[in-house]
Amino acid sequence: MRTIKLTLEYDGTHLVGWQRQAEGRSVQGLLEEALARVEGGPVAVEGAGRTDAGVHALGQVASARVECGHDAATLARALNALLPSDIRVIRVDEAAVGFHARFDARSKTYRYQIRNAPVASPFERAVVWHIPGPLSFEPMRAAAALVQGTHDFRAFQSTGSGVMRTERTISRSEFRHTGGLLVYDISGNGFLRHMVRALVGTLVEVGRGRRSPESMAALLTGASRADAGPTAPAHGLFLVSVEYY
Amino acid sequence: MRTIKLTLEYDGTHLVGWQRQAEGRSVQGLLEEALARVEGGPVAVEGAGRTDAGVHALGQVASARVECGHDAATLARALNALLPSDIRVIRVDEAAVGFHARFDARSKTYRYQIRNAPVASPFERAVVWHIPGPLSFEPMRAAAALVQGTHDFRAFQSTGSGVMRTERTISRSEFRHTGGLLVYDISGNGFLRHMVRALVGTLVEVGRGRRSPESMAALLTGASRADAGPTAPAHGLFLVSVEYY
Repeated sequence: MRTIKLTLEYDGTHLVGWQRQAEGRSVQGLLEEALARVEGGPVAVEGAGRTDAGVHALGQVASARVECGHDAATLARALNALLPSDIRVIRVDEAAVGFHARFDARSKTYRYQIRNAPVASPFERAVVWHIPGPLSFEPMRAAAALVQGTHDFRAFQSTGSGVMRTERTISRSEFRHTGGLLVYDISGNGFLRHMVRALVGTLVEVGRGRRSPESMAALLTGASRADAGPTAPAHGLFLVSVEYY
Repeated sequence: MRTIKLTLEYDGTHLVGWQRQAEGRSVQGLLEEALARVEGGPVAVEGAGRTDAGVHALGQVASARVECGHDAATLARALNALLPSDIRVIRVDEAAVGFHARFDARSKTYRYQIRNAPVASPFERAVVWHIPGPLSFEPMRAAAALVQGTHDFRAFQSTGSGVMRTERTISRSEFRHTGGLLVYDISGNGFLRHMVRALVGTLVEVGRGRRSPESMAALLTGASRADAGPTAPAHGLFLVSVEYY
């Protein structure tokens, strides 16, 4: 038995998310099916981030224990031949016995893309949140910087998700502006359900002038979900990478 | 009555092409429907390039005669509100009376994208031809350069299209290499049916070492379709722009 680490890219548009479900195309389900065909028997796959329906990945990481003797490159080729074209295995690495993609992750990096322009290109529809109205970038940048550090993110957790410990440490929270594209990069040791999208929804309210950048600080001390802004749409979000020790 | 010039961007993935057809989503059909709603009566739209099913556009140009009094910006906004998100009106301009998008076009520029890498990103599936095997760039570049000038392109016209005069003048024919992406740019005063895709299919055979770059010259003197390479897939092709006097 060996443990493998898979790095994956996927377009979430037509996926129900990472997690296997009774109905619909999940990354976990499709990957387990492909691996089972290579292995000749059932294989369980664990993912570092349980991305929601519509969320994309540039560097999701998954772990699995397999018996098959294929080298890493052959395994990657075989899986890509079996997987649909919206999911690609970028690489396969040998991992230490017992490696677990989620439990062993030290931090994760997400990206959120906003197109702030009157017209959205048909070619980026599936990967940006299109906001045609005016957005002030400088207040958004200032509010995003306040997210860095250790805070209680209760106000940015989707209601009913029931996680008790809502403190997280964010090592990077940065808005960049490139042309009409606003890109938000966030890295941290853990993320609550819908946390990045709730942060983005709130930062956009700052950009629209409906909240002050400073108001962000009060939200980061365990405020309630109703105090923060709406959840931004899933299709602007990417799981960029997962960092391990 | 006024004549307007519309510049359009579209993702051809789920379109049957420019031309209105009995069945399916055509750009012409959807644009005529949207314009008819703004105008309050039927409107005929002419396109500069009759792109095939699956072919994309970054700068298709269309002309129409309308009576409505909306200014250009209002008209663009109204049309974008009525059109599906895979078709966008980038701009509307007032044109001289009698302007015709196709007959008045001086030249058109197309682009073809090839991803030459073991794995194709899920995010570019719909806009590149993925070729995993080895391709030699330098012979492709040399062969592409031979296309520039005035030639008989009969060998690159889809069989049965029945156009008698097959001489065309190409002002630019260039392969660029950026990372793993091969980009072919071609401008000319006119294009036969499937001509760009047949050129690309032939240039790829050069890249695969199945033809010499020099063999391109013989094909450009009115050879038969069977002498040239296969037609490259539609989804790598973009109509980039249309130039007028």
